[in-house]
Amino acid sequence: MIDRLIESICAKKNPTVVGLDPRLSMIPDFIKEEAYEGKPESLEGIAKAFFLFNKAIIDETFDLIPAVKPQIAMYERYGAPGVQAFIDTVAYAKSKGLIVIGDGKRNDIASTAEAYADAHIGSVEVDGKPVIPFDEDFLTVNPYMGSDSITPFFKAMRQYDRGLFVLVKTSNPSSGDMQDMKMANGLTLYEMTGDLVDRWGEEFRGKYGYSDIGAVVGATYPEQGTNLRKRLPHVFFLVPGYGAQGATAQDLRGCFDKDGLGAIVNSSRGIIGAWQNKKYAGSFEAKDFAKASRQAVLDMKADLNSVLG
Amino acid sequence: MIDRLIESICAKKNPTVVGLDPRLSMIPDFIKEEAYEGKPESLEGIAKAFFLFNKAIIDETFDLIPAVKPQIAMYERYGAPGVQAFIDTVAYAKSKGLIVIGDGKRNDIASTAEAYADAHIGSVEVDGKPVIPFDEDFLTVNPYMGSDSITPFFKAMRQYDRGLFVLVKTSNPSSGDMQDMKMANGLTLYEMTGDLVDRWGEEFRGKYGYSDIGAVVGATYPEQGTNLRKRLPHVFFLVPGYGAQGATAQDLRGCFDKDGLGAIVNSSRGIIGAWQNKKYAGSFEAKDFAKASRQAVLDMKADLNSVLG
Repeated sequence: MIDRLIESICAKKNPTVVGLDPRLSMIPDFIKEEAYEGKPESLEGIAKAFFLFNKAIIDETFDLIPAVKPQIAMYERYGAPGVQAFIDTVAYAKSKGLIVIGDGKRNDIASTAEAYADAHIGSVEVDGKPVIPFDEDFLTVNPYMGSDSITPFFKAMRQYDRGLFVLVKTSNPSSGDMQDMKMANGLTLYEMTGDLVDRWGEEFRGKYGYSDIGAVVGATYPEQGTNLRKRLPHVFFLVPGYGAQGATAQDLRGCFDKDGLGAIVNSSRGIIGAWQNKKYAGSFEAKDFAKASRQAVLDMKADLNSVLG
Repeated sequence: MIDRLIESICAKKNPTVVGLDPRLSMIPDFIKEEAYEGKPESLEGIAKAFFLFNKAIIDETFDLIPAVKPQIAMYERYGAPGVQAFIDTVAYAKSKGLIVIGDGKRNDIASTAEAYADAHIGSVEVDGKPVIPFDEDFLTVNPYMGSDSITPFFKAMRQYDRGLFVLVKTSNPSSGDMQDMKMANGLTLYEMTGDLVDRWGEEFRGKYGYSDIGAVVGATYPEQGTNLRKRLPHVFFLVPGYGAQGATAQDLRGCFDKDGLGAIVNSSRGIIGAWQNKKYAGSFEAKDFAKASRQAVLDMKADLNSVLG
């Protein structure tokens, strides 16, 4: 799956992943009206609005980007209908040829991790046939519980050609509380986690030298990103923190290898909420919100390529 | 919320929490038949079977136990219908006076963690009114991302009197991969995490001295449990690992304080799958699976109380 991601990044000359993290406040009224069908607002109506919003953005951007990263929390917030909107979004994105990174940061032990693997990147047996419940291509996972919380995903990875992105150095201000702690062996915790990710991914390396088990490395910590890039030549990075969280293209240069590969950069609000940003609000009306997203993708692509050369 | 949990433990003289982690293989055929209503097996049918299975176990055990802990992964495995069965299980358990610990190990940064908080222990606004999507009393969370992945839960905790259990030392064999690592400051990572949990919980301490922010401490590591109990006098422990995972009542004695409080012990398969265990299979038929669970709860209560005195 990492090979497919790399090939799509190269074909589209764009290492941008669009974070499909809708909030109700981002959704134009006309989408809500269509979704609510004249009925009072409900969980089902909001879920439908999320799907229509995502669909319009996917339709306007799928030719420019390799992947989308829907954040499950935003959908789970609206209960089971929200979860269904997540699943529908994954399916629609894949129908347009996009790779889908499910951002769930799931984690549990052994047989329970298996249940998350079945749900998100594997399948369950229903009436004697395999059913694929969520169908993401990659899932983000949290490594705090150790190896036997990661290995239960391997079966589904092999069977369905899927991948993982493991949290290593996250983009939030407090990520250092644990991740930057110095260990007795001289490493920081995030370096040690990175080494574990490298080891877990050994058997999943593809033809470009990168593994199906990647790492989440925040663009907001350029020094750590550069350090990890050198340390982990086989680990592909999913890089959050660009745009709304404050990181610039220059900040994340160090997350890429010398060929301009090795990382994919996420922007959520900066793209899906573009029509509400000062930068685009003058040029796009609410009805053209998805066109504003398209312009934001083009601008981000140009910005990233300007430092990648 | 921790006060309510403690009072219920004392009233029922039982620190047992029943893990409602259904697997299809545990569900007797007659429950499946009722749930499937003559139609072919489907995600909806399986979800209904999970709910009916849980309901029967809750009906047979609610008078004996303070709390249940449904594991979200088991429901997410069956897509949106599965998630709805989780929500229905939470509602039914609460209607019987039980405290519900949602085992989701959720984690994310800032505004995304807020979405998980809204979903699980808070509310969302729908048509101008608050709607409570999942309605657990406690949620388990993973601390790898640091303080600003935990503080977004505080608002919902205050507003709805809820709590958290933060992963500190988990029960799985590989938990030491990260959690036992020695830091440069002489502490292990799990001790450092425990100290953070203590600090996060300071403002949430109740009348018995324990905080609404507790810790997950596996019964499979008696020495670490004893160490943490001494180190964290204000942190209540949720203790997995008893029974199917191999820990005995004696192993988890150290997780309790001198008054026999300070911890609640989970058993999942050992209780909900009791009718399939050698120990109970001779005495209970499939149709009495919930009665076997009741007997397993009584046996676990007696076993725990034998070491708590």
